[in-house]
Amino acid sequence: MTRAALTEHIRLKKNYLCVGLDTDPQKLPAFLKHFPDPVFEFNKQIIDATLDHCVAYKINTAFYEVNGAAGWETLQKTADYIPSSHFKIADAKRGDIGNTSALYARAFFETLTFDAVTVAPYMGEDSIRPFLSYPGKWTIVLGLTSNEGSADFELQELADGMLFETVLRKVSQWGTTENLMFVIGATQSVQFEKIRAITPDHFYLVPGIGAQGGSLKDISEKALNKDVGLLVNASRSILYAGSGEDFADRAGAAAVAYADEMALYLSLKPKA
Amino acid sequence: MTRAALTEHIRLKKNYLCVGLDTDPQKLPAFLKHFPDPVFEFNKQIIDATLDHCVAYKINTAFYEVNGAAGWETLQKTADYIPSSHFKIADAKRGDIGNTSALYARAFFETLTFDAVTVAPYMGEDSIRPFLSYPGKWTIVLGLTSNEGSADFELQELADGMLFETVLRKVSQWGTTENLMFVIGATQSVQFEKIRAITPDHFYLVPGIGAQGGSLKDISEKALNKDVGLLVNASRSILYAGSGEDFADRAGAAAVAYADEMALYLSLKPKA
Repeated sequence: MTRAALTEHIRLKKNYLCVGLDTDPQKLPAFLKHFPDPVFEFNKQIIDATLDHCVAYKINTAFYEVNGAAGWETLQKTADYIPSSHFKIADAKRGDIGNTSALYARAFFETLTFDAVTVAPYMGEDSIRPFLSYPGKWTIVLGLTSNEGSADFELQELADGMLFETVLRKVSQWGTTENLMFVIGATQSVQFEKIRAITPDHFYLVPGIGAQGGSLKDISEKALNKDVGLLVNASRSILYAGSGEDFADRAGAAAVAYADEMALYLSLKPKA
Repeated sequence: MTRAALTEHIRLKKNYLCVGLDTDPQKLPAFLKHFPDPVFEFNKQIIDATLDHCVAYKINTAFYEVNGAAGWETLQKTADYIPSSHFKIADAKRGDIGNTSALYARAFFETLTFDAVTVAPYMGEDSIRPFLSYPGKWTIVLGLTSNEGSADFELQELADGMLFETVLRKVSQWGTTENLMFVIGATQSVQFEKIRAITPDHFYLVPGIGAQGGSLKDISEKALNKDVGLLVNASRSILYAGSGEDFADRAGAAAVAYADEMALYLSLKPKA
């Protein structure tokens, strides 16, 4: 998906919501357990209920790998079920030496048909380049993550700023604003302005609102750019908004609440 | 597997060779293509031919994910085929926020029965802790990797040394020498003494000999410790030693050559 198509979808829907399909097999409503593939049935109903109120879906691979090969089958079916109108992210946090990263890129961009995959930067340029070589596909590199552990390395000082700043600066030279995004945690409010100063035009994938405590208002006020430039993810607060037979309706309502809030923030920003 | 059991196996075999099952579906000998699962057939024959000449196997998940759910099936069958005498590593380079890392740990330690999994450190402590909570299992954290891209971040200077040194220092406090190893690339010869000074007693998983150009002699002379403390991996130089019907014999011979060289280095070291 091109940046223009993504931005157009956001303008049309008036939100920048990504629904995170972090579907924990142990947290499914009881009545779904009789379906042949309960996780897929759950995802299908979540997608049906949220499709009109979001622009992207993010599939967290860990939640599928926990079921082994059967889990990967569910992952594939879920990815295939998401319509091509929506930006489809594999939240896989992969990254390895060049020849191995090339295979991860093939796995997510060719075997599966994701628009984007998240990548860890620790191993440097040749671990990221293979993902960037796919036309129309996106590489989303970890910048400053939402978790407490971000203080251990990402926030450590190097000669010219913190590690995450060096990551943003270097990695942004390897790709463009048309094929590269960064993961920026919503819990890292104090750093948003600095981050936008380094990468003013990039899109960010923002986890950390909802269960992790980050503020949608904060990230929106400080990091929306002229092309919107944000995909804000919510997983648990949507997936588990309800736990009974009405779980999908509750999920849809939770997505609408986020979407409405986002429409407000968009209306307060000057148009491009 | 305990450290004592691993060390005993190394002493018995007189080598510290890990065979890397980075099996590229596009590089299989032609005659294997008629088998129902050619990659599994290849792996089985490689394992049979090398079992007596190594102490560990490392399965690189990228090479399986490229085939989607069917690839994960092959990965599971391969993992199951490796006998419990041998240390079984999932080279997956995972790492995410705590609740997600917990699922990756379950995926590799419970759903699959690996002894160890490789983990990327960028996201810090809560991304690594869940892996360390499994008794008898090992977490192998990226320290200083073998690729060129290691210069981009791992070798950057922080206040108290390079990033990889900070990683070694901090991460070694989160686990013990009984449940934590580090990935140290064989191509990073100039750093070996510094690395051993920070983590004198840890085991290292060492990729980068063979196709990547690192020296087995160098890493052995500079980094063997009193419990051996090394698992040196070779992948392509063993898997693709031959490309015809004798590929497994050629792989076995390549493993023997590494094992013989390792026996020499072990004989030159004082025993614990």
